[in-house]
Amino acid sequence: MWIAELSRQTDVPVATIKYYLREGLLHAGEAVGATRARYDETHVRRLRLIRALVEAGGLSLARVRNVLAEVDEETREMHEVLGAAHGALIPSDLTTTEESRGRVDELVAEQGWQVDSESPDRLLLANALDALEKVGYHLDDHLLKTYASAAVQVADAEVTSLPADDRQRTVEATVVVTALGGPVLLALRRLAQQSASAQRYGNPHRPACDTAEPAVRSTSQGVRSTG
Amino acid sequence: MWIAELSRQTDVPVATIKYYLREGLLHAGEAVGATRARYDETHVRRLRLIRALVEAGGLSLARVRNVLAEVDEETREMHEVLGAAHGALIPSDLTTTEESRGRVDELVAEQGWQVDSESPDRLLLANALDALEKVGYHLDDHLLKTYASAAVQVADAEVTSLPADDRQRTVEATVVVTALGGPVLLALRRLAQQSASAQRYGNPHRPACDTAEPAVRSTSQGVRSTG
Repeated sequence: MWIAELSRQTDVPVATIKYYLREGLLHAGEAVGATRARYDETHVRRLRLIRALVEAGGLSLARVRNVLAEVDEETREMHEVLGAAHGALIPSDLTTTEESRGRVDELVAEQGWQVDSESPDRLLLANALDALEKVGYHLDDHLLKTYASAAVQVADAEVTSLPADDRQRTVEATVVVTALGGPVLLALRRLAQQSASAQRYGNPHRPACDTAEPAVRSTSQGVRSTG
Repeated sequence: MWIAELSRQTDVPVATIKYYLREGLLHAGEAVGATRARYDETHVRRLRLIRALVEAGGLSLARVRNVLAEVDEETREMHEVLGAAHGALIPSDLTTTEESRGRVDELVAEQGWQVDSESPDRLLLANALDALEKVGYHLDDHLLKTYASAAVQVADAEVTSLPADDRQRTVEATVVVTALGGPVLLALRRLAQQSASAQRYGNPHRPACDTAEPAVRSTSQGVRSTG
């Protein structure tokens, strides 16, 4: 296909495709004469991957280049490629305390998770725990374990759902699901919170709801104020 | 206490406290002479709440004012106050398609969630589903239900963990847990994804892991490409 058709199929403007070609993110097409080139399915797939990394993942082109290098390095194991895609989605300026990092390492060991000891995902969790401490809240072990157990269910279903036939498509789907599945999960959690709170505090418009049971469960204090 | 002590106890600068006093976000202290005033525990708690809304929730002062008005309106039911705190955390410029809104309404009904039909949380979920469609992915019902079930576990534990004795503290904790518990959950999900992916694609450094079982499970395709 010509570049116009490639643009139409991928929803990427011709000028952007030319930019990716110049930057080496996209491999050249088959030259036909001096100024035209033919493109094929491999270009469509690569453009989809770049688009997922940029639009869903919010990555800079420099980071996209790193992930693509991992995808193209045929000697790399698949889980290493996924690790690179994951790592590229993490902000590089994460600060953490020693306490929170220790707590994360303990949790990972306890859950028996196979996670690289150098994984930036550990820093991401430590940073999130620190953010809570900073405003005077300590997440207790019970609530942390509830989060962990929910996270395992979600992650297992997500990883199982990834296509396994093709490195590019797997990485593309990993980035899309990691980046855009998060907001779906968080929005569902807010809806479920609203429902749980209506049950706990009572909702005069829905008298069918029994408030007695949640009130009993409220004795377990998952979030302890430390401020 | 004098204003300096109030500042020390809450970690809010004196100049900021004076600004909140002028703006009416914080009630005046007890006047002692022409230029000094004494503050008490009610000021400490109100400042903690404002700090949670601004720092954890990232709210503008105009939105903080709305939430505080709900907290102070004694005739408001608790679940309405929490609804206002929740609503204030949602960006106001959400766009959604009719398809995604219909899917959200269906899911909420199916799950039996008590959620206001006008709740902005519905828009938040619809918007997140649209973001996936926009990059060519359709989240299938199986994966969506797995998210929903994990969300219920998390939300129940979170709402149960909220202090129930005091409106201000409940709203403060709701904002902090909603805003900062999200990143904790997402970070745990990434760690669990990494572990699930190491199991599925094999990790040469950890030969104890059996890759056979996850490969069988990969036939269920949760994320279907629509692009």
